[in-house]
Amino acid sequence: MTTRERVSIQRVRPSVLDGRFPAKGIVGQPVQVTADLVCDSHEVLGAVVRHKPEGRRGWTEVPLGHDINDRWTATFTPETLGRHRFTVDAWVDHVATWRRDLGKKAEADAVEAVDLAVGAELLGALVERAKGSSRRRLEEAVTALTDVDLPLAARIEAGLSEEVALLARELDPRANKTTFRRVLDLEVDRPRAGFSTWYELFPRSASTEPDTHGTFRDVIDRLDHVERMGFDVLYLPPIHPIGTTHRKGRNNVVHAGPDDPGSPWAIGSAEGGHKSIHPQLGTIEDLRALVRACEDHGMELALDIAFQCSADHPYVTEHPEWFRQRPDGTIQYAENPPKKYQDIYPFDFETSDPEGLWNELRSIFEHWLAEGVRIFRVDNPHTKSFPFWEWCLGELKSEYPDAIFLSEAFTRPKVMYELAMRGFTHSYTYFTWRRHKAEIEAYYRELFHTEVADFFRPNSWPNTPDILTDQLQHGGWPMYVQRLVLAATLTANYGMYGPAFELMWSQNRPGAEEYLDNEKYEIKRWAADEHNPLAEVIALINSIRREHPALQQDRTLTFHEIHNDHLIAYSKTDPTGHDTILVIVNLDPYWPQSATTWLDLEALGVDPHEPFEVHDLFGGATFTWQGSDNYVELHPHVAPAHVFEVRSHRRTEADFDQGD
Amino acid sequence: MTTRERVSIQRVRPSVLDGRFPAKGIVGQPVQVTADLVCDSHEVLGAVVRHKPEGRRGWTEVPLGHDINDRWTATFTPETLGRHRFTVDAWVDHVATWRRDLGKKAEADAVEAVDLAVGAELLGALVERAKGSSRRRLEEAVTALTDVDLPLAARIEAGLSEEVALLARELDPRANKTTFRRVLDLEVDRPRAGFSTWYELFPRSASTEPDTHGTFRDVIDRLDHVERMGFDVLYLPPIHPIGTTHRKGRNNVVHAGPDDPGSPWAIGSAEGGHKSIHPQLGTIEDLRALVRACEDHGMELALDIAFQCSADHPYVTEHPEWFRQRPDGTIQYAENPPKKYQDIYPFDFETSDPEGLWNELRSIFEHWLAEGVRIFRVDNPHTKSFPFWEWCLGELKSEYPDAIFLSEAFTRPKVMYELAMRGFTHSYTYFTWRRHKAEIEAYYRELFHTEVADFFRPNSWPNTPDILTDQLQHGGWPMYVQRLVLAATLTANYGMYGPAFELMWSQNRPGAEEYLDNEKYEIKRWAADEHNPLAEVIALINSIRREHPALQQDRTLTFHEIHNDHLIAYSKTDPTGHDTILVIVNLDPYWPQSATTWLDLEALGVDPHEPFEVHDLFGGATFTWQGSDNYVELHPHVAPAHVFEVRSHRRTEADFDQGD
Repeated sequence: MTTRERVSIQRVRPSVLDGRFPAKGIVGQPVQVTADLVCDSHEVLGAVVRHKPEGRRGWTEVPLGHDINDRWTATFTPETLGRHRFTVDAWVDHVATWRRDLGKKAEADAVEAVDLAVGAELLGALVERAKGSSRRRLEEAVTALTDVDLPLAARIEAGLSEEVALLARELDPRANKTTFRRVLDLEVDRPRAGFSTWYELFPRSASTEPDTHGTFRDVIDRLDHVERMGFDVLYLPPIHPIGTTHRKGRNNVVHAGPDDPGSPWAIGSAEGGHKSIHPQLGTIEDLRALVRACEDHGMELALDIAFQCSADHPYVTEHPEWFRQRPDGTIQYAENPPKKYQDIYPFDFETSDPEGLWNELRSIFEHWLAEGVRIFRVDNPHTKSFPFWEWCLGELKSEYPDAIFLSEAFTRPKVMYELAMRGFTHSYTYFTWRRHKAEIEAYYRELFHTEVADFFRPNSWPNTPDILTDQLQHGGWPMYVQRLVLAATLTANYGMYGPAFELMWSQNRPGAEEYLDNEKYEIKRWAADEHNPLAEVIALINSIRREHPALQQDRTLTFHEIHNDHLIAYSKTDPTGHDTILVIVNLDPYWPQSATTWLDLEALGVDPHEPFEVHDLFGGATFTWQGSDNYVELHPHVAPAHVFEVRSHRRTEADFDQGD
Repeated sequence: MTTRERVSIQRVRPSVLDGRFPAKGIVGQPVQVTADLVCDSHEVLGAVVRHKPEGRRGWTEVPLGHDINDRWTATFTPETLGRHRFTVDAWVDHVATWRRDLGKKAEADAVEAVDLAVGAELLGALVERAKGSSRRRLEEAVTALTDVDLPLAARIEAGLSEEVALLARELDPRANKTTFRRVLDLEVDRPRAGFSTWYELFPRSASTEPDTHGTFRDVIDRLDHVERMGFDVLYLPPIHPIGTTHRKGRNNVVHAGPDDPGSPWAIGSAEGGHKSIHPQLGTIEDLRALVRACEDHGMELALDIAFQCSADHPYVTEHPEWFRQRPDGTIQYAENPPKKYQDIYPFDFETSDPEGLWNELRSIFEHWLAEGVRIFRVDNPHTKSFPFWEWCLGELKSEYPDAIFLSEAFTRPKVMYELAMRGFTHSYTYFTWRRHKAEIEAYYRELFHTEVADFFRPNSWPNTPDILTDQLQHGGWPMYVQRLVLAATLTANYGMYGPAFELMWSQNRPGAEEYLDNEKYEIKRWAADEHNPLAEVIALINSIRREHPALQQDRTLTFHEIHNDHLIAYSKTDPTGHDTILVIVNLDPYWPQSATTWLDLEALGVDPHEPFEVHDLFGGATFTWQGSDNYVELHPHVAPAHVFEVRSHRRTEADFDQGD
């Protein structure tokens, strides 16, 4: 009922809905923990974060320091993958409180004998806990404090000794300490979860021979090109057998022609389901060769997992209970009334056999994990139950803590956030439709500067096989470069539906935000290896990303004012503070735009009274600026963007060496 | 392990730190509950708030409706005082989902027989749960849906019937429903906790005879005057015997003269402690008479509870273990080094006897509660442990749910918030030091438009016996009126250190934000009954508050733009929307200020295309305005403020009758 605890610990972060879900971290990268600590009266507090990998017995402690307004902060760096746990302890530090007060009294010449006796009593209580030289040092301090033959100044000095203060802090029994009421979870992923560059292609279009179905082997032949552009994740749409019943034809028409290959997302035929390979793409040996070839090119293969079935999927006959049965004995296909998707049977998560369904779905991931695949783009996760994802991804991550799951949900914000909370490593974003300055600023502030940052890792895509936005239809080269620079520098994770972007396919199906002659329903040819106007720009921006740690994280994104709504300016600084990139983009693909900046110099690490250099890694020029206000002019057909490295004289020469 | 639950329920509010502490409500006033509900796929959801007074067996349900962006909302009105509990259930409403889809298919002429059969199956499953005419109605619907002899349109109509929809909703078994993971607490207080007007006076100064110690009987004689000014809480500083050891003299000097009465906050002498009455004030019978007299005047008596002791308090000898002992055998007095408060011994909440201390402190409140006192101003609660307050106030409120506790903590924001979370009904605020427009707006937005609103009830004071701000020292009548209007209309709870404010005592102790010849250390005389320049203004503003429900709550406070930093504009509308008050204050006490408003017409409930009237309840004039932009001019020496009643033609005549 009663307690002697006095410190209150609230709002410990990172925390997702008060610890209901884990926050996310990256191995080897510092996690900043903050907590509100308040105590009655005016005492000096002691506080630590305790953290450990889940399952380990002992905790590691890091002291919290006071930041501002009763907010305390500490950082720790998780050294292993997987789930970690942490919490906060806080207590009244009686020795430190006494020492602070003694200092104030000494300054005011108001120390009394009893003040020194109080300190001797407090330190004396610690002697028992000390050993060796520490113990001797404490005993000496106690003696000095109480030695009436010593001058007062010497006695006070003994009490104010830094060394004794450190000893006292170490030996503090932390009497009546408070422990935060929750132990919080942190899911620690590998570095590629925090920084990655994705290229999507349809392997069936990878052949260079006319009228030939592409194969995994053809994809291997394309890897040099993809590597040269600087990508590190090669993502393939589903590679499984494609259903024939209700197969969709070119441009998504209801009836397929005899040679139409069908959508790779209509999974399952007599040739197998989610654990099988579409025979025209190759064999499991070919896939293994592709996995290895990607590694040889410094890339990783990502597969698409789409939990849905064509009418021909073996599950439909083997496990009809996993689908919704209709009174006429048929199975409910997907629909968005009045639209019907008769080629797709969704699973029923209110099935009578949830154990069977859940375990089978998990085993699909496990099948491909066993083949060495560690990255999955998950199709439409928002049409599968949230508790399923939390369980499935949790089980998989505990077995394969290096696995990465990208949530392909372009839906309402809270649904997208829910999926991220339930365990998805990455999430597609609204970047695709955020075009104007105010939209972009508001969106990324929400993502990086609110609680969302603790659980949601955005992966920005300018296009996908499903989405050809209005601006990409009409904006031409300046718009492609603009969207590329934005995606690649706003977020550390980004990707593209590669051939279409690289070759600037811009023809939409009339009235729709979709590609005409969509590759989802037909085999395309693409001339990836010949010179094209964007490949070099892509390669350049990706090399800037690789060389600049500032662009390999998201938390430090800062928007700067610039007095023209067509120009957007933002910077990122890596956590060490050594690398700062300032990006300015002309959002108008047609006309030159100019303006004066109003830079946040503190965010840039720049002295307001000294000139500093900005070196355009994109365009090559170097400018000398000073203060907040600097002139910028961008011609969309020449260079739609500046990607400046900020070279401040406040930084040392050694720091610059890294950046250049 | 597995589950068929599909709906996710997050961020249910009102909630304080995810349900760690209760939110606050007022009996008879609606509580708006919001929750984020998301489900996989595109289903129609059903959801309810369940609520009940703590300890009652059955729950009352209120359906939640979708508001915006997956946020759902409902209101319920607690009908009893004390702790209430509530939570949220949500589920997939399969009948409503089917009905929505049937409607869309019907519109597109795409209904198939199987669609009707699905509905018949869903409704058929409910027949068992229905009785009487409901059952017959459901059976008819099932028959119609499946009757192949009926025209298709009639069968569809049977499925779309509103009546059947309502029946289905009532009978929904809520299969696989999700319950929010917490049951949240709501502390329901009486109306005066939400709306009150406080007047503080020192009873020892209440005598009208020269050189005479005032008594409770003298206070009774002052009640007519206080009532005429419109106050409903009369608050007295501590009424207990005052210590003599280390008693402070006039103007807080260390040594008291023989006739100095001492500070009422130095509690305890040979004559008793916290349960005793200072003999010069009267007897317990006199106090009872004062309690009754206050009731007769439509007021309530509030006492000051200050948990600290003078050196002469009986506790010091009876319970030395409740204080911090020093090595020289003395007790640690209060200090803020190098300042010493030797007349005050604080309790030690790390005492060896927390049970004894906590129970005794609680019994002090119980002693005065038993005398019929229900309102307490608690002195310096931030120097007593937070867990103590949570326990003590929780125990007291469960026994006396009509008790009100005002936290007198002018300290750091998170400490003030912590005390409110731990159970204080009201809190003093920074209003006293918020003078400029931007400061006032930022502060009250934080109080009313963030999570703070769920647990913190501000009580705004322009002055206290401890605080005579710079502006009150120099601003004269215009400043007093300005601060009065702001305190009385920004917050539903406000108060004043009455005689000093009413009589505009403005002389400060040099260099300090304090009254010269502070009443804390001496007996004052005040001529409360003679005509004074502020009493009438106070009476007017308090009568406006009483007549206008808009001013009796805080949540709807809205700031309006006005193009002059010396002018501030804000409005409040009562929850029914019938009463709207628009306040405009000239913050400059010296010069007339004028500007054009830019009103938020929606917040005012005003049609932008129609003229509306604003009637100045304070100054008497009526203006006809239209649109956002209207001219305002305020002369500080004539009228530093407008307090407009907004009379919109969008409201009915009947509504106006109420307001006038």
